[in-house]
Amino acid sequence: MFLALAIVASALCISSCGGSDKGVNNPSIRNIMNRKSVRSFKDQPIPQEKMEAMLKAAMAAPTGMNVQPWSFVIVTDKSNYDKIFEGNFNLKIFKSAAAVVAICADTTFKWTPKEGEDRTPVTLPNSIWRDDMGACTENFLLAAESMGLGAVWTACYPYLDRMEPVRSALGLPLNVVPYSLVAVGYPDGENQPKDKWKPERIHYEMW
Amino acid sequence: MFLALAIVASALCISSCGGSDKGVNNPSIRNIMNRKSVRSFKDQPIPQEKMEAMLKAAMAAPTGMNVQPWSFVIVTDKSNYDKIFEGNFNLKIFKSAAAVVAICADTTFKWTPKEGEDRTPVTLPNSIWRDDMGACTENFLLAAESMGLGAVWTACYPYLDRMEPVRSALGLPLNVVPYSLVAVGYPDGENQPKDKWKPERIHYEMW
Repeated sequence: MFLALAIVASALCISSCGGSDKGVNNPSIRNIMNRKSVRSFKDQPIPQEKMEAMLKAAMAAPTGMNVQPWSFVIVTDKSNYDKIFEGNFNLKIFKSAAAVVAICADTTFKWTPKEGEDRTPVTLPNSIWRDDMGACTENFLLAAESMGLGAVWTACYPYLDRMEPVRSALGLPLNVVPYSLVAVGYPDGENQPKDKWKPERIHYEMW
Repeated sequence: MFLALAIVASALCISSCGGSDKGVNNPSIRNIMNRKSVRSFKDQPIPQEKMEAMLKAAMAAPTGMNVQPWSFVIVTDKSNYDKIFEGNFNLKIFKSAAAVVAICADTTFKWTPKEGEDRTPVTLPNSIWRDDMGACTENFLLAAESMGLGAVWTACYPYLDRMEPVRSALGLPLNVVPYSLVAVGYPDGENQPKDKWKPERIHYEMW
């Protein structure tokens, strides 16, 4: 009977764990559905291994032509918060965050000729960096949610009044824009995800 | 002894399942790291509940001002593929896909006055719809990966030669752009995720 219990427990484990569970109610989908904006945080630092896991997730985003336009500036020194956020931000969001991560984008990419091709390498504008950055920021947020952290995505690009103070405070190069500012930390209080399911937004074969 | 086994099995389960596992190697992070572009598919349809789970995940993306600009056109009738993809696409990618999902964006939003405010509702351009759409597409891809499906994100916006055939074939309204085309199905063959980890892209406090 105890053996049976052990087997049932293991079977339950296999059917409900990531990797082996390919069903619609798997941990990854639950995590996506549970992600919410968190704007109030406990006074508790983020362990380095968790920060690194979020950055790894962010850098695993899909990226057009494999350009990987992203870079990250992690700000934890709160004496810098005011300077960075003097743009049109709601500073209260950031005040309690253990870290604010400026997710930045190189808006250019280096084109290099294929082997044997008689052309000169050149720096070109990238017309799809912004799409990569949306996916990158979302991966960061999902990784935070999965580790019991909370985060909120604040748009920086394309607002000049937000970008310029951030660019100057962080010393960003001219080809790099601050894309999003993500406040992250351990959530203070309960936050619930929004229900945004709208089946009327789905069309079959034609609009 | 068997009871002990049962307890250990359950404990292992709790520590390695989503929801209760807040560590850096949880199923959601593994899923993010395992997501890859899949361009070749088995001749096997996608169960409706899996398609719905991907759409639910997509609609759970963060969205600026809660605008939710997304809509979806699911194309499974392969006789329409040529017409839709006559733009500058690599049609081979799509030929074997069980479905091609056109993830579309309303580039405008309806602004409505707050209660008691004496102003007229108006339709305005949305300057951050593209960021929502990147997150939305990424959620769709992650949900696919988590259920044993494979997918590839093909950029449609901002390329006119891609958007116009798709818009016309799918009968999209004028305020709606086809943002991405996602081919999805059961993967044919093994696909590996790219290693894009670049610690040199991380800066602390300043660039």
